[in-house]
Amino acid sequence: MRREEKQSVNRQKVNEFCHRIKAGYLGLADGHLPYVVPLNYVWMNDCIYFHGAEEGRKQRIIEENPQACFTIAEDQGTITNPVPAHTSTGYYSVMIFGKLEIVHDIEEATKSMQVMLDKYVPGYFSDKLSKHHVSSYRSSKNSKTVVYRLRAEQVTAKENKLIDEALFYNGRTREQDLEERPSE
Amino acid sequence: MRREEKQSVNRQKVNEFCHRIKAGYLGLADGHLPYVVPLNYVWMNDCIYFHGAEEGRKQRIIEENPQACFTIAEDQGTITNPVPAHTSTGYYSVMIFGKLEIVHDIEEATKSMQVMLDKYVPGYFSDKLSKHHVSSYRSSKNSKTVVYRLRAEQVTAKENKLIDEALFYNGRTREQDLEERPSE
Repeated sequence: MRREEKQSVNRQKVNEFCHRIKAGYLGLADGHLPYVVPLNYVWMNDCIYFHGAEEGRKQRIIEENPQACFTIAEDQGTITNPVPAHTSTGYYSVMIFGKLEIVHDIEEATKSMQVMLDKYVPGYFSDKLSKHHVSSYRSSKNSKTVVYRLRAEQVTAKENKLIDEALFYNGRTREQDLEERPSE
Repeated sequence: MRREEKQSVNRQKVNEFCHRIKAGYLGLADGHLPYVVPLNYVWMNDCIYFHGAEEGRKQRIIEENPQACFTIAEDQGTITNPVPAHTSTGYYSVMIFGKLEIVHDIEEATKSMQVMLDKYVPGYFSDKLSKHHVSSYRSSKNSKTVVYRLRAEQVTAKENKLIDEALFYNGRTREQDLEERPSE
């Protein structure tokens, strides 16, 4: 009941949101131990793409268990209410579930990294990314880089709409709100 | 090597950061399926506190497997570099690992919810939160609310310092940067 109220998978809204937001949170399960990493990503053809170093705990977990939950959320402000327990947050969030795979196809990897540059540094590079650059991709820390794809098998969205007139701002008080809304 | 470079557990910095950031990402493992939920929280006495509805998938997972990874991160901006693969992000992130428990002690639950109100709506309420209000806590959706505590068994922090002069802004181009830094 509570979940259904907030569940609203409007694909266009999900797409616009996933394109716009900068950081997502990749959840993995290392045996029974959860692991959550913030990542830059792009959303393309119903897939999340990101890159990462070839070694490390994240890589090791993915090899053992490719199941992932990628969560993208936006906090839109705190909603005041004279009843403390009714204080809430305006937000929109998307969860993308599926399995992670390494992208071996150099065309696909190059395309996704081009979309990533277009998202994070739009207009900075005048030349298109070359396949050669992607196949030899090494980060500034000199670690070899791998491109991952998470194909969305399931997408859920939740929303708690911001109530503009109830938005918290510094200096706002309950007394003030009760005076203005004497019926409450 | 790569990880160690970024690992910097300065407790004062971790504390300041965890107090300041608004949303954290709770990672759980539902069997081998990861699950990541964005949450408001407070950081108090080396514990993360948050509240949630009494029913739902999150609650069910926690009952079955209380292991959690709570990740808090801040994106500080995109760092440009004339080499595409060296484009990066300035960030600071903290991961808190431990087991979740329901807070049954009403004093502790009330204290944590008071700290939460002080964090999200500072100055809004002139009266302190009453224990009675917390024990009968019901959200605006009328679901009974439970307070959870995640005692930090392990804390890690990662940082990629923002290079101010390389911060991306709209209109910045690689050509411009190469002209200004002809030695590169």
